[in-house]
Amino acid sequence: MKPKEAPVPDRPQPHPTGAMVIGTELVPGTGAQVQASDPRSGEVVEPVYRAASDEQIDRACALADRAFPQFRALPAERRARFLERIADLLDEHRDALVERAHTETALPRPRLTGEVGRTSGQLRLFAAELRAGTWQRARIDPGRTGDNPRPDIRQRRIALGPVVVFGASNFPLAFSTAGGDTASALAAGCPVVVKAHPAHLGTAELVARIIAGAAAATDMPEGTFSQLVGSGHEIGTRLVSDPRIRAVGFTGSRAGGLAIAAAAAARPVPIPVYAEMSSINPVLLLPAALAARGAALGGEFVASLTLGAGQFCTNPGLIFAVDGPGLDAFTTAATDAVTANPGAVMLTGDIAGHYAAAGTALAARNGVAELAQGARPDGAAAANARLLTVDGAAFIADPQLQNEVFGATSLLVRCADTTELTTAVRALEGQLTATVHADTADFPLAATLLPLLEERAGRILFNGWPTGVQVGHAMVHGGPFPATTDARSTSVGTSAIERFLRPVAYQDMPAALLPAEVCDDNPLDVWRRVDGEVERSELSTG
Amino acid sequence: MKPKEAPVPDRPQPHPTGAMVIGTELVPGTGAQVQASDPRSGEVVEPVYRAASDEQIDRACALADRAFPQFRALPAERRARFLERIADLLDEHRDALVERAHTETALPRPRLTGEVGRTSGQLRLFAAELRAGTWQRARIDPGRTGDNPRPDIRQRRIALGPVVVFGASNFPLAFSTAGGDTASALAAGCPVVVKAHPAHLGTAELVARIIAGAAAATDMPEGTFSQLVGSGHEIGTRLVSDPRIRAVGFTGSRAGGLAIAAAAAARPVPIPVYAEMSSINPVLLLPAALAARGAALGGEFVASLTLGAGQFCTNPGLIFAVDGPGLDAFTTAATDAVTANPGAVMLTGDIAGHYAAAGTALAARNGVAELAQGARPDGAAAANARLLTVDGAAFIADPQLQNEVFGATSLLVRCADTTELTTAVRALEGQLTATVHADTADFPLAATLLPLLEERAGRILFNGWPTGVQVGHAMVHGGPFPATTDARSTSVGTSAIERFLRPVAYQDMPAALLPAEVCDDNPLDVWRRVDGEVERSELSTG
Repeated sequence: MKPKEAPVPDRPQPHPTGAMVIGTELVPGTGAQVQASDPRSGEVVEPVYRAASDEQIDRACALADRAFPQFRALPAERRARFLERIADLLDEHRDALVERAHTETALPRPRLTGEVGRTSGQLRLFAAELRAGTWQRARIDPGRTGDNPRPDIRQRRIALGPVVVFGASNFPLAFSTAGGDTASALAAGCPVVVKAHPAHLGTAELVARIIAGAAAATDMPEGTFSQLVGSGHEIGTRLVSDPRIRAVGFTGSRAGGLAIAAAAAARPVPIPVYAEMSSINPVLLLPAALAARGAALGGEFVASLTLGAGQFCTNPGLIFAVDGPGLDAFTTAATDAVTANPGAVMLTGDIAGHYAAAGTALAARNGVAELAQGARPDGAAAANARLLTVDGAAFIADPQLQNEVFGATSLLVRCADTTELTTAVRALEGQLTATVHADTADFPLAATLLPLLEERAGRILFNGWPTGVQVGHAMVHGGPFPATTDARSTSVGTSAIERFLRPVAYQDMPAALLPAEVCDDNPLDVWRRVDGEVERSELSTG
Repeated sequence: MKPKEAPVPDRPQPHPTGAMVIGTELVPGTGAQVQASDPRSGEVVEPVYRAASDEQIDRACALADRAFPQFRALPAERRARFLERIADLLDEHRDALVERAHTETALPRPRLTGEVGRTSGQLRLFAAELRAGTWQRARIDPGRTGDNPRPDIRQRRIALGPVVVFGASNFPLAFSTAGGDTASALAAGCPVVVKAHPAHLGTAELVARIIAGAAAATDMPEGTFSQLVGSGHEIGTRLVSDPRIRAVGFTGSRAGGLAIAAAAAARPVPIPVYAEMSSINPVLLLPAALAARGAALGGEFVASLTLGAGQFCTNPGLIFAVDGPGLDAFTTAATDAVTANPGAVMLTGDIAGHYAAAGTALAARNGVAELAQGARPDGAAAANARLLTVDGAAFIADPQLQNEVFGATSLLVRCADTTELTTAVRALEGQLTATVHADTADFPLAATLLPLLEERAGRILFNGWPTGVQVGHAMVHGGPFPATTDARSTSVGTSAIERFLRPVAYQDMPAALLPAEVCDDNPLDVWRRVDGEVERSELSTG
């Protein structure tokens, strides 16, 4: 009962056909129909997709479980080549991906073109990281004989096991099928089962074909990658509950993330859940900066707020300013920019509906006033930018004012003085980012706020805007709850590989059996801690 | 209503008085009576303790929360001196600690003397680790202007917040009040609230006074350390549920660990739970090793099995051997050694009762036969060693044979051949350790078993015995469930500091505000990754 279309071709075709990827097979789901619609017209987008059956879900998990021992044991170089092959194929098929994603998400073509580059670049960065080997965090405490003997202990990291990745609506490429979670999990040596986001199934299929093609071309074990289709929480709960799944990566709504965390908590065997959920990304305008360039800040702020219809996890949904010189100029400039904003079509009709409802609810809270609304274009999922305002005391008193409005709505909090600003910052929930606009005269105040921001956010920006997350070695895209369910890690940048690894120690292991990373002669030339000292040399243990 | 005895003296007195430590105060609990008994006589040990009231629990959490911002922001050098002061005071009061712990636990004095040294040594190792600074995992991606501009991103790690530590019954010093979890949490910059183990309240009080004295002497903020008394799950659930607590360290039974994990899972805001629970530490005797030295292995095995009345997390509760030359010699030697074993007094009457019941249950399973029982000495909590046996097929068929018997009972699994051995290993749950006895001729078999063991254990030993956990940089004391609730970390060794840290990134932060670890001139002389390269130099970013 496994309808089989065709083996995965090395050169993926540019048009989606309604297929899922299960191991090396392209198969349609056999469950209920799931179909995306064009967010501009509201019309159904071809082809038809069907949800994975329980049997298909089981098969994807079984293949991932079977692939795991082989996949994790491959030399890092082999996995690096697999990632690079995916990157090359993404770039090669860039135009087809951009066209399909544009149809499904209404995101502008230049943005999507950039996103393909970000996605392939991210894969290449993890390939380089695999070769550098630092991710193994190799440690050696050489054994000693004599008066004070001790065993020889060596530590490295190994992969956790099969990982489920949930594609995100707002980044159909960089946080979806071949996105950050997939890249870091595959780099770590974990097979991946993706649950495609139902709003861009065609894009997801094209990318899944690319990954499957790259897996075939680089001879990865069957089951290293699968992608399933489904809608609602059912398939997600089933995947997260499967005993063969050892970790979960999710980017989406607070409700969705909490549902997944609850499903994971109900498992007999606990697993890590990395759910990135809700963040309103406070921006603090400190007095000297505000006085010096209030109008300019107002314009920059609205540009960040309305970028991509405000559909970024790092969208500035909250802005704090102390009443004083510059605030009027800021408010005027921001109000004008919002009013002049043409609006945009959001990713889906559902998202636009939630956006409108959440904005209405926020505007109706005690003390909240409307400063500006932008225009609303035509389109089934169209939305307009909004700027609301409230005073500091009302903000501090009402935790509901921190509910995320996913889209281009922001709340300007006018604080009476820096004491009220500090109190408001103390009242903040966890965030992905916090931004400070500060001139030199603001540094003493910034220095007192900084520890509060560190305790509440994963990334702190100065004199910039939170939208835009650079992919590199030092990035942290994560933060305290409700920004994520696990603040100990990041979903962007090379540190993300650590999510899917665990340490193993070897005691008095014969040299013939030692993993290369911890061999005396250091054949992989990796940095290690030997007796606590950082070094990259050979070891002479005699 | 806060009964106050006296401020904490710098030189702690050598006799416990029934006090808890809450911030800088020594206070008795005001709840129900909790009292330890001498495991030899069953008689109550003075003084009387009382459980912490809800108000006292609240106060300890409130003080920890208030201390957190100050404590985490101290220069690492300050926290290093605090840890060293604790270590010095532990060594200074060694004899009093050993006497009290001997009375409460019946553990032999030489073992307890060693445990004091292990505990102080562990604190000094974390002090050295704090100074080395590698734990900060500093990363810098310097900004760029020009054609391909990018922001400047710098990453370091900061403390999670107040941590609750549950003292363990079996290590009244090294895994209790000033044990590994406390040492690594304090090193990370997290205030600690210890829930004292009810079986050694006097030892716990003496150590708590030492920590409080060291905190006062090194000018740590009030609330950096508290210790509470309570019995049953109630105080534990309350502490783990407190919103000000940000992580939990636990060493104990599977039931206890699961109860704590469940309490944490019910929190609105999830927190990391590091519960070390249940491990039976399989030992594999490969054919050539067994043939070469079966009798010697039998003797060594029983020495490891009966060490400390078998009350180690790493006690070898399961031993696999392939039928063939050497197995008879091994079995005879082990049987003789168990029969000759004088038995021992366990930590508490409850533990001895559970041990007897679990042994009886294991012996009653299908196919299990008794090979030997040792003598049982006098004493309220006395127990004897036991060796049971079963064949490989029965072991594979019955998961209940993997239930931990905490104490000196082990199960010898006789496998028909190496295929059955491999199948049995595949059937294993997660473990803290797995041990392989192998001669050169066994290496090909060991190489095929090694990946299976890596997936199931945190530490793999060759030609040794799992009891004894070296404190160093490379140690992993952890492993897949049910050994722990979170296999991503270790509770022993310097890697343990990572449990209580999370990464924060700084984007385009003015030099005047940057933390020292990521400043251009690298004033702390720490290893960093700059643009991905490992280095310890100054940065010339112009």
